[in-house]
Amino acid sequence: MDDFEHYTTIPQFNRMRLDILYGDVWQQPELTPRDRSLVTCAILGALGKNAELEAHMHKAIENGVTPDELRGLVVQLAVYAGWPVGVNSAKAGLDIFKAHPPAEGD
Amino acid sequence: MDDFEHYTTIPQFNRMRLDILYGDVWQQPELTPRDRSLVTCAILGALGKNAELEAHMHKAIENGVTPDELRGLVVQLAVYAGWPVGVNSAKAGLDIFKAHPPAEGD
Amino acid sequence: MDDFEHYTTIPQFNRMRLDILYGDVWQQPELTPRDRSLVTCAILGALGKNAELEAHMHKAIENGVTPDELRGLVVQLAVYAGWPVGVNSAKAGLDIFKAHPPAEGD
Amino acid sequence: MDDFEHYTTIPQFNRMRLDILYGDVWQQPELTPRDRSLVTCAILGALGKNAELEAHMHKAIENGVTPDELRGLVVQLAVYAGWPVGVNSAKAGLDIFKAHPPAEGD
Amino acid sequence: MDDFEHYTTIPQFNRMRLDILYGDVWQQPELTPRDRSLVTCAILGALGKNAELEAHMHKAIENGVTPDELRGLVVQLAVYAGWPVGVNSAKAGLDIFKAHPPAEGD
Amino acid sequence: MDDFEHYTTIPQFNRMRLDILYGDVWQQPELTPRDRSLVTCAILGALGKNAELEAHMHKAIENGVTPDELRGLVVQLAVYAGWPVGVNSAKAGLDIFKAHPPAEGD
Repeated sequence: MDDFEHYTTIPQFNRMRLDILYGDVWQQPELTPRDRSLVTCAILGALGKNAELEAHMHKAIENGVTPDELRGLVVQLAVYAGWPVGVNSAKAGLDIFKAHPPAEGD
Repeated sequence: MDDFEHYTTIPQFNRMRLDILYGDVWQQPELTPRDRSLVTCAILGALGKNAELEAHMHKAIENGVTPDELRGLVVQLAVYAGWPVGVNSAKAGLDIFKAHPPAEGD
Repeated sequence: MDDFEHYTTIPQFNRMRLDILYGDVWQQPELTPRDRSLVTCAILGALGKNAELEAHMHKAIENGVTPDELRGLVVQLAVYAGWPVGVNSAKAGLDIFKAHPPAEGD
Repeated sequence: MDDFEHYTTIPQFNRMRLDILYGDVWQQPELTPRDRSLVTCAILGALGKNAELEAHMHKAIENGVTPDELRGLVVQLAVYAGWPVGVNSAKAGLDIFKAHPPAEGD
Repeated sequence: MDDFEHYTTIPQFNRMRLDILYGDVWQQPELTPRDRSLVTCAILGALGKNAELEAHMHKAIENGVTPDELRGLVVQLAVYAGWPVGVNSAKAGLDIFKAHPPAEGD
Repeated sequence: MDDFEHYTTIPQFNRMRLDILYGDVWQQPELTPRDRSLVTCAILGALGKNAELEAHMHKAIENGVTPDELRGLVVQLAVYAGWPVGVNSAKAGLDIFKAHPPAEGD
């Protein structure tokens, strides 16, 4: 499907995406884009929104989060949101983790 | 798979589906079928049960909920259950939203 | 605590409450206030947000939802979101249910 | 409040409690009462229904689950549903755990 | 994908899987392997982790849980975690339920 | 109750808290303590673990997260995990937000 069709067929939802989500929330200065991305990945992982998590992990990399920091996030999710959440978050970031081996052993 | 095989292989679960879910709960007079459908879609969306939500959105249309009301539901879910819930609910109703353009602009 | 202190100490959150939540979402025409209230109660109940559910049940009554319709909502929540959700939703509406006996027996 | 008032003010909900929950589900032979109690505690813990979990932990003891088995359940919940779920489940069983010291060291 | 690639690309997560999850938690004596499997299936079902539930249902059979006991688990999940959780848990165990017809009618 | 009684009455749980949670996970180098705290608050907020969130917000401040960053977290939680999650997270941090007025207007 067209990636935005579920927005454009609901005009008020699309308007909220542009004006509120991206035009307001993501522009607020309290969190840097890097921190906002990290926090968003933590929220999406905890809620089990795996497809959205995968997309936001890539956005997090663009915003300056490192692959190793995402590895740390996976562990924190596994412990605080339950092992299966860790597993699913690891799968969501698999492309990133494969492309960027860990900086140090464990 | 056969759509009901996961019921018929668990006889007591199938009996509960027929006698309790459809024979009792959905027949109770406190909510009209239209309202019960609307409420069920709200519950399923909030819980992230997207496949079940898609099926119940079609049932909701049959029971008199309009496509525009489902659009309103998507927004309410996005705000009260979180943006990714709105996104997934919008995708669950995409066939309906594409077939029925919004009655009014936003 | 002051009922709005958790908003006013986070100015951007308070602004979003006034401009977006009440100034935009609740004014959108796709759902009537009555339906939006009913849907909101369903979402809050499913998510286990019991204090917020209690407040919105009272708002739902103001918006034209009847006590018997809220009884129907409790049953639908118990079945689709799990028995303990039904129990907690029933407790959230207890003042309403005590003040308004059921219109008909079951 | 009267412990059953949230049921008796919603007659169809009370009827379902008596006829379906206790008259049917809990009488089904596939699970022994001991296993059904253990499973119910696991579900309630995972869902964060702590007050209901506390009640069902006591019922589980009556049905033959041992305090040490509930200790094992707390650990399994902590690992598979997240550490805070373990913490809340441990608090839900605190009276039991205090009254019955562990059978063996760890 | 390689079944363990999401672990091996996050070395500390893989270490925790081997040392903590399998080397410690699953070896603790408070729950028998059969009971720990039954409890784990209940947790995974309640949390909607359907792929993990399917894998653990097979492990539960190996650990001595019977297909009929899993049928009972599905019903208990449907009632306490909501009907769609029962449906998804029934689907997770469908291969087992098809291969092992119920021991007794309902 | 004694703050650690729910741990000490379950010896293996207490051991895991000391050896795994604090002795291992929180010592892993992939996330700084500041980032690990921020991420943990995001997870706890998303999961609705409000008492644990309150405790970890204070720990986050000790680890270098600023009150304004926690304000940003509340907004991100409200948008991505649903408005009531934002409300409850704001309440969890109220003492911090009252003691530290926002650095800049919104």
